[in-house]
Amino acid sequence: MISAGTTLRLMREQKPLVHQITNYVVMNETANATLALGALPVMAHALEEVEEMAGIASSLVINIGTLSPHWVEAMELAGRTATGRGIPIVLDPVGVGATTYRTETARRLLDAMDVTVLRGNAGEIATLVGAAAEVRGVESISTGIEPAELAREAARTLGVIASVTGPVDHVSDGERVLAVANGDSLLATLTGTGCMSSAMTGCFLAAKPDEPLEAAAEALAAFGVAAEDAAVGAEGPGTFHARLYDRLYALDPDTLDGRTRIE
Amino acid sequence: MISAGTTLRLMREQKPLVHQITNYVVMNETANATLALGALPVMAHALEEVEEMAGIASSLVINIGTLSPHWVEAMELAGRTATGRGIPIVLDPVGVGATTYRTETARRLLDAMDVTVLRGNAGEIATLVGAAAEVRGVESISTGIEPAELAREAARTLGVIASVTGPVDHVSDGERVLAVANGDSLLATLTGTGCMSSAMTGCFLAAKPDEPLEAAAEALAAFGVAAEDAAVGAEGPGTFHARLYDRLYALDPDTLDGRTRIE
Amino acid sequence: MISAGTTLRLMREQKPLVHQITNYVVMNETANATLALGALPVMAHALEEVEEMAGIASSLVINIGTLSPHWVEAMELAGRTATGRGIPIVLDPVGVGATTYRTETARRLLDAMDVTVLRGNAGEIATLVGAAAEVRGVESISTGIEPAELAREAARTLGVIASVTGPVDHVSDGERVLAVANGDSLLATLTGTGCMSSAMTGCFLAAKPDEPLEAAAEALAAFGVAAEDAAVGAEGPGTFHARLYDRLYALDPDTLDGRTRIE
Repeated sequence: MISAGTTLRLMREQKPLVHQITNYVVMNETANATLALGALPVMAHALEEVEEMAGIASSLVINIGTLSPHWVEAMELAGRTATGRGIPIVLDPVGVGATTYRTETARRLLDAMDVTVLRGNAGEIATLVGAAAEVRGVESISTGIEPAELAREAARTLGVIASVTGPVDHVSDGERVLAVANGDSLLATLTGTGCMSSAMTGCFLAAKPDEPLEAAAEALAAFGVAAEDAAVGAEGPGTFHARLYDRLYALDPDTLDGRTRIE
Repeated sequence: MISAGTTLRLMREQKPLVHQITNYVVMNETANATLALGALPVMAHALEEVEEMAGIASSLVINIGTLSPHWVEAMELAGRTATGRGIPIVLDPVGVGATTYRTETARRLLDAMDVTVLRGNAGEIATLVGAAAEVRGVESISTGIEPAELAREAARTLGVIASVTGPVDHVSDGERVLAVANGDSLLATLTGTGCMSSAMTGCFLAAKPDEPLEAAAEALAAFGVAAEDAAVGAEGPGTFHARLYDRLYALDPDTLDGRTRIE
Repeated sequence: MISAGTTLRLMREQKPLVHQITNYVVMNETANATLALGALPVMAHALEEVEEMAGIASSLVINIGTLSPHWVEAMELAGRTATGRGIPIVLDPVGVGATTYRTETARRLLDAMDVTVLRGNAGEIATLVGAAAEVRGVESISTGIEPAELAREAARTLGVIASVTGPVDHVSDGERVLAVANGDSLLATLTGTGCMSSAMTGCFLAAKPDEPLEAAAEALAAFGVAAEDAAVGAEGPGTFHARLYDRLYALDPDTLDGRTRIE
């Protein structure tokens, strides 16, 4: 049953450890979003410790935003550990489609581990399913496929839950497609909000590992509700950014389900 | 013709991709400032992709704030690509004068590529022209040369547009010297505002590549106006920081030229 | 004599350079906290320059939050230089107890240099003295030892000033134990506040190198007072974060001693 409030309450009780191997640009942001939501973030990327860290975590979030060979190696190693333990893995293929290295790395990571949820923008996901897509840097410019169909197709082709974010988000397991209509346009004015939504997905998956489709949609809805709240009274991207953590922290499990728009 | 408003309007229409190879401390800050201003930031530093990324970007910003050999190698590679394509390059020689490694790296980068704009504080730029300078960490303490003269001298000696920031900024192509008197003293209480001004320079250059002297001055003026606006109602460095993105985002091309103080 | 106000005033006059080799997550945060307090931060980690940078700094802060072999090597090198020059060293053993690599690295660093102040949470410090401890990621979950006793024991065993932070902080040289009761519960909702308190310790030590026990306690008290001020009017972790820099900047040496609660 879809209930972001129930999952959020459970997560705050459990305080799961969410191991994140992510990019330099957003590390502080995803750590703070994780903490504000109610889980425990840990950033660790050394080959010397990623297996041990993934070994005690409740979920793993991998993000290739500022990738380089050593980091990719660590991502693979952590991903194998997580796969072996059966904990959920979120992969955020930042900038796939912009360079060959990013596209090949994302494919390699998809092969190397059991990715539970692939969370990206339309251009990134379209690139991975071989559809037409334009990605400029880390921004999705256009794709030749409708987002709900893209999510379903990506889930089927890649064997993952596909979570395609945009003005409306679409999450699919290849059969069902859940559309999430929460959020605010200020999210697009701030770097790392996609990365934060991947971290939020990792938090919700940790609390609801057996229903990853629902958990992924709930995470986006909860994040979107916080963004809606943060936009009230924000004067632009900067004050919105500060308020976003305030409102993630203030999310109320009791009233959240009345706010989420998941179809 | 100098018109920060015109350049800003054009940039927001084009949404140029600004490739940044910068330091760990300010990556989030320069990405958010770029996005708030209206351009698209992308951070990529792997040898495996910097040529491809610089190959699709409209300008390149290189910043040595937390340099190490692998990163410097990537900066050179990206810089060669940018030089080959004729897109503008901004070099920010953070901390030059504080250690030999920084000074030698900045010289090496100046040799390896066609730097369009060299943006630094007085101590850093003075070090590069061989003038007396004291740099403590990344802070300019003193120089033995007047800033307008320093900018002109640096432009002549190094074959760049020299952009020397301080209480009043001075930008020179070796002939003309433009003085920019926008800004607020709170900028000095926040780390990375120099790095942000380099990123802003990369954004303006992308929109006005054929007039780099003017673009560089316009960038500093626009950033300074946003800082002036952000200071209103700020209670210190932290709230000023948040408001700075708000006000970059809110910069109005129609009224900007009435606010800039470029001579 | 304990007087956070006196040390703060002296520090702001001297503007000491505080060399920080720290983790990717908090670099911006500790740099901004250092600057807001009144000292000059510099982040430098390349083997090519750490000795030279530590050679001009007034104190060194080492933090293993996102460690990897190259960085640890640089930490050792900088630490040896600092030891040779007799400047204070702060070690923040982030996540010790969570993985073997972190625990071994912290021990190795303690051996390689004269650590002046070891600043960590109870779980991290307990791990280093061999007491029972549970550390989840970078969070202290529980220890089998009372914090004042832990601080004293760590100081004696490890030959450092031990600074154990928590709801009440305890700082000891093995004989005296100072308890610091300043702070606010919002600190725990924000990532990197422990790292910031280590940076603040580095700033105070730079101004009062001959009384490291007192300087360490004063630093925590001053940081706690700023947190108390920041909490007033904060709506959650995000606005608290922004206000924290405002209030560090606004700390008044003349009234600070009336606010600190050091016993």
